[in-house]
Amino acid sequence: YERGAVVADARIVVGERKRFEMDVGDISFFFKARSVAVIGASTNPIKVGNSVVRSLMSNKNLRIYPINPNASEILGLKAYPSVKSLPEVPDIAIVTVPAEFVLDAVREAAEAGVKGVVIISSGFKEAEVEEGKVREERLREIARKYGIRIVGPNTFGIVSVVGGINASFTPMFSEVKKGRIALVSQSGGICHYIIHKFRDSGFSHILHLGNRCDVDFPDVMRFLREDENTDVVAVYVEGIDNGRGLFEELKRLCSEKKVVVMKSGRSSVADKASVSHTGSMAGDYRVFASAMKQAGAVVVETPTELIDTAIAMEKFEVSGGVAVLTIQAGLGIVAADIIESSGGRLARFGEETVRKLKSLLPPITLRENPVDLSFSGLNLKVFAEVIDTVCRDDDVGLVMFLYAVAPPSWVLPAEVISQIMGRITKPSILGYSSTPENYAEIKEALKGSKTLIFDSVERAAKVAAILSEKRNYF
Amino acid sequence: YERGAVVADARIVVGERKRFEMDVGDISFFFKARSVAVIGASTNPIKVGNSVVRSLMSNKNLRIYPINPNASEILGLKAYPSVKSLPEVPDIAIVTVPAEFVLDAVREAAEAGVKGVVIISSGFKEAEVEEGKVREERLREIARKYGIRIVGPNTFGIVSVVGGINASFTPMFSEVKKGRIALVSQSGGICHYIIHKFRDSGFSHILHLGNRCDVDFPDVMRFLREDENTDVVAVYVEGIDNGRGLFEELKRLCSEKKVVVMKSGRSSVADKASVSHTGSMAGDYRVFASAMKQAGAVVVETPTELIDTAIAMEKFEVSGGVAVLTIQAGLGIVAADIIESSGGRLARFGEETVRKLKSLLPPITLRENPVDLSFSGLNLKVFAEVIDTVCRDDDVGLVMFLYAVAPPSWVLPAEVISQIMGRITKPSILGYSSTPENYAEIKEALKGSKTLIFDSVERAAKVAAILSEKRNYF
Repeated sequence: YERGAVVADARIVVGERKRFEMDVGDISFFFKARSVAVIGASTNPIKVGNSVVRSLMSNKNLRIYPINPNASEILGLKAYPSVKSLPEVPDIAIVTVPAEFVLDAVREAAEAGVKGVVIISSGFKEAEVEEGKVREERLREIARKYGIRIVGPNTFGIVSVVGGINASFTPMFSEVKKGRIALVSQSGGICHYIIHKFRDSGFSHILHLGNRCDVDFPDVMRFLREDENTDVVAVYVEGIDNGRGLFEELKRLCSEKKVVVMKSGRSSVADKASVSHTGSMAGDYRVFASAMKQAGAVVVETPTELIDTAIAMEKFEVSGGVAVLTIQAGLGIVAADIIESSGGRLARFGEETVRKLKSLLPPITLRENPVDLSFSGLNLKVFAEVIDTVCRDDDVGLVMFLYAVAPPSWVLPAEVISQIMGRITKPSILGYSSTPENYAEIKEALKGSKTLIFDSVERAAKVAAILSEKRNYF
Repeated sequence: YERGAVVADARIVVGERKRFEMDVGDISFFFKARSVAVIGASTNPIKVGNSVVRSLMSNKNLRIYPINPNASEILGLKAYPSVKSLPEVPDIAIVTVPAEFVLDAVREAAEAGVKGVVIISSGFKEAEVEEGKVREERLREIARKYGIRIVGPNTFGIVSVVGGINASFTPMFSEVKKGRIALVSQSGGICHYIIHKFRDSGFSHILHLGNRCDVDFPDVMRFLREDENTDVVAVYVEGIDNGRGLFEELKRLCSEKKVVVMKSGRSSVADKASVSHTGSMAGDYRVFASAMKQAGAVVVETPTELIDTAIAMEKFEVSGGVAVLTIQAGLGIVAADIIESSGGRLARFGEETVRKLKSLLPPITLRENPVDLSFSGLNLKVFAEVIDTVCRDDDVGLVMFLYAVAPPSWVLPAEVISQIMGRITKPSILGYSSTPENYAEIKEALKGSKTLIFDSVERAAKVAAILSEKRNYF
């Protein structure tokens, strides 16, 4: 059975869709729940059953029902002994009791009429003991028998930022800004890492699938395809065992939304570690990546690339090569190196563009691509003409301007930078290095503009590479 | 001649050292100068000749002589009409006059007895016009005739942080912290980018070589080999035309100091752009990288890797594979992926280690490498035993702990993190994701410790990969 998952991966190409047909169902109610029971709610602040209640409480309009037979009140909310004793049937329940009590809790919730549960408790398939596997199989049976949907087990939960539901053990997630990127992850650690790192970014929903005993990638993709709050879907995958389902649903999702996927397991050790319990073997990574690309997704290799790319895809669509403009040749050269060696494409300027650039710029080192404006960049009239020339070139799909602030006169005011970037008629990325204060000012000035800003040449160039990669895979 | 440089690169392997013997001379006086003339000093704050004076003025003990026949005072300093009219022969002169006046200025300085000049002015070899090349050849002749040393032309200058000499057009460089890393760069933009990005880091000297009409990489390497303020040398190279000299001097430098080298031009376009004026062709990158490794240097691919690695090399030396410890499997898997796919090496735990880890940790997904402590990581006694076990393993050369703060009880106090990292008896990297405030607190708590801290899993893993790479190249 363990090895069977390899075949499941191969099904991406071979075909066989029975399991897929069964899997995909409606899960949208999780994201618009108005009443939530927390089974295993606790008065102890270091318990998961306490932090889940705190997470939910960020939304004053939610009806929250802590379930704990030994407490009358939890965090100021009336506690109940069981789901059955609640004044209403809650839309969903969150389960935080120890593994051995989970089956009963889910069964009780299902019998009471709850439509979906999120199981945070661990001690299932991931526990490497027979008992855990058996429990997980039982969970699946309960889901089928009662028609209840289960997220998890072994998940931190789900967060609908736009829906105002933080059904996770992380109260901090209530502070995530609203946006149009959905993050779907097979790892909770990666979600926490991403949210810490991208606290400026906005998300529509954050879902940690955990063990996927019932709700799996295809269900989530179907939901997100129909979700009007989401434009871009960022997916972190470790191992899959329903390759065909993922592929088919991803293909549909890609026809409606922009999708970027990262799968770990590129290296043999990581692959072994990441999918030890689903039995995938080293070497599957390439098959997976090809299939994802064939379905229409952009494939990236690190969590930072995942969200950097999602943010860029939310801002614009790139069709063509990258034109690099800089005032300091070294930055342009480093960016060109990263773009080309990462599989991206620098624009090949047409003859007319090259002729025009040579007439505009003095004989300095770089007047093709990257274009080094050098001190001419300080002549804003020349700069404007260079921008117009480059934007007119048919092969240019993205314009990148790189800038490391240096004196004496290279410190341009924020409104000048805004003007420069605003003049670019194609998707644009600004790589801007300066003091934290000056960077913050420039970032603020560009808010709401179509320019993506980075303080790292490496990250800027990597995103440009990913977006300019040739898309004709098949 | 242009194509001849390819042969120069090939000489790295082929041999032929005449030019090298001629090149290397003493340049240490630049870094201990006590009196400096600024030829072309200006009262106009947006002129380079003004900002250079401001840069120098950060050191109150330096005797600064602005040279400008049309001014009596510049920035409160008495100005002089010529180098000859100064009350003493300055140790060095900085030249900021337009290209057409540079030859006369340098000749005058040389005749007055100045030992070295830094030429900031551009309009030489890089200018792609015959005149520029001729001027640069004349400069070289003057250097030889008078025995004067020339840095540049077309450089922002040199900064001796430990020597208190900011001989550059960037006053901000006076604020760079003192440290034991020397940065030698062929690009000024890259230096500015690095200093903006690594403002927390300490440097001994920052040198921008510019066109290298006289002072070249080998001279700098010889100086740094003997410099007692420098432990690690970080080098950014675009193109070279004295490959043998660089190789031989780098080899000697590597026998005394730790050296990390980044060369741009990995891709064809970047290579063409970066060395258009020295004539190197695509494909040289691998030859160069192999030669650098053969000489004993660590080779990296981006500016961030350059300084991240230099900082790590200053802290510790790694001999062995990387052991990854984490509380969240996803982070460990992502790190393992990056380490392995970047050419680094994960430690292969011995049987004894694996047996011990399996007895210490409950059956969770990862108990080999990466080791996922999961919730057991919150039992500090178990954590301590895991650390001791991993550190005892002979194949472990570096221990990495990855952590994305999550509630409820995963927020460990700074002193606990310090204790954990302090217990690790081998080089250690902490990848820590949290709020900016908490991260700053942890960083502060680890100050002076042997732990390197990163807020990026990707950067942490990349450095671990670089340091654990197999070194037996030949």
